[in-house]
Amino acid sequence: MAGEKAVEFVKDGMVIGLGSGSTVYWFLKKLGGLVEQGLNIKGIPSSIQTENWARQFGIPLTNFSEVQRLDLAVDGADEIDPDFNLIKGGGGALLREKVVNAHSERLIIIADESKRVKQLGEFPLPVEVVPFGWELTANKIGSLGVVPVLRKENGEVFVTNNGNYILDCKFTSIPNPQELHHELKMMLGVVETGLFIGMTDAVIVGHSDSASVIEK
Amino acid sequence: MAGEKAVEFVKDGMVIGLGSGSTVYWFLKKLGGLVEQGLNIKGIPSSIQTENWARQFGIPLTNFSEVQRLDLAVDGADEIDPDFNLIKGGGGALLREKVVNAHSERLIIIADESKRVKQLGEFPLPVEVVPFGWELTANKIGSLGVVPVLRKENGEVFVTNNGNYILDCKFTSIPNPQELHHELKMMLGVVETGLFIGMTDAVIVGHSDSASVIEK
Repeated sequence: MAGEKAVEFVKDGMVIGLGSGSTVYWFLKKLGGLVEQGLNIKGIPSSIQTENWARQFGIPLTNFSEVQRLDLAVDGADEIDPDFNLIKGGGGALLREKVVNAHSERLIIIADESKRVKQLGEFPLPVEVVPFGWELTANKIGSLGVVPVLRKENGEVFVTNNGNYILDCKFTSIPNPQELHHELKMMLGVVETGLFIGMTDAVIVGHSDSASVIEK
Repeated sequence: MAGEKAVEFVKDGMVIGLGSGSTVYWFLKKLGGLVEQGLNIKGIPSSIQTENWARQFGIPLTNFSEVQRLDLAVDGADEIDPDFNLIKGGGGALLREKVVNAHSERLIIIADESKRVKQLGEFPLPVEVVPFGWELTANKIGSLGVVPVLRKENGEVFVTNNGNYILDCKFTSIPNPQELHHELKMMLGVVETGLFIGMTDAVIVGHSDSASVIEK
């Protein structure tokens, strides 16, 4: 419901950041339908999976060598706090998602009610790190009082679309997301964190048969 | 001369960070000779090229899954200021070099006299960036008053050992290296900078037929 509702914010001529994940799938499907009916938009995908879906649904794509500013980005989230700060990266696409979202005029997050929390941190924060010396980076992150877990998939180390690893860091409680992001990002070996601070303009919460828009 | 002089700092049993570049080649060659005579050390290479050289010279290798602390690292530099702050990355291996050097008890830089400068910045600062959206990262770095140049090699975009791009940023003068590193590293899309601050313990300067050690 939330994914389908989001297309109401799309206007003809827009360049749109296409988020990642299962909720975004429904947005893309609906968007593809409108393109088929004549809507003129272009999308920049934030993951290889989204790129494949967009092609499947006939959504025209562009990239950052052609446009440097997006009108709208639509993406999912793993946690959303009352200030609309987010934890993202459960699907592993946090870096490209952040690049896309940070360069969009407007960011709309689509999610179900379960993603809304009072404080971030229960969902393990994904931190994208350089493979070389990741053990040392994990040690340093560990000094913040967390046990970073190297993400694996089917028994193999999970590798992001950018060739990096993900350390999942369950802080349980993140009272100051800005400060934690700063501390992590400054660390040698850290490429990006899953904390998306001050980027979100609206959240569309999906219910079983409707969706409500919450503006900031 | 500087590269060969550096082996005097190597002691039996050490784990040694093996830097990158042409000066380091001579260090590795000399070190390989000592290993052949019975010296017991292990090395961690900071680039694929260095790894190949080390194998060629019979230097036993290890990695960060086995050891998390090095006794000594020996590396080159592109610029060295009076406080032993460095610009590195002319060869493109800055990230792995920084990981290796930052986790070593002692860092010795080997260079010729021409690398010593009053202030860093004449040598274009290499900044390692994520390929996805690199154009946007370059724009943001450009806002600091520099024109970042995407590094190419034989007409192709240069790709680091970590799968990233390099932006060469000629600041001409860097009065506050710490501050600049902080500003750059915090930027979305920046993986690491070529500023090595407060890491170097000694510099070995090579002359035509001798080498002098300058301690901090």
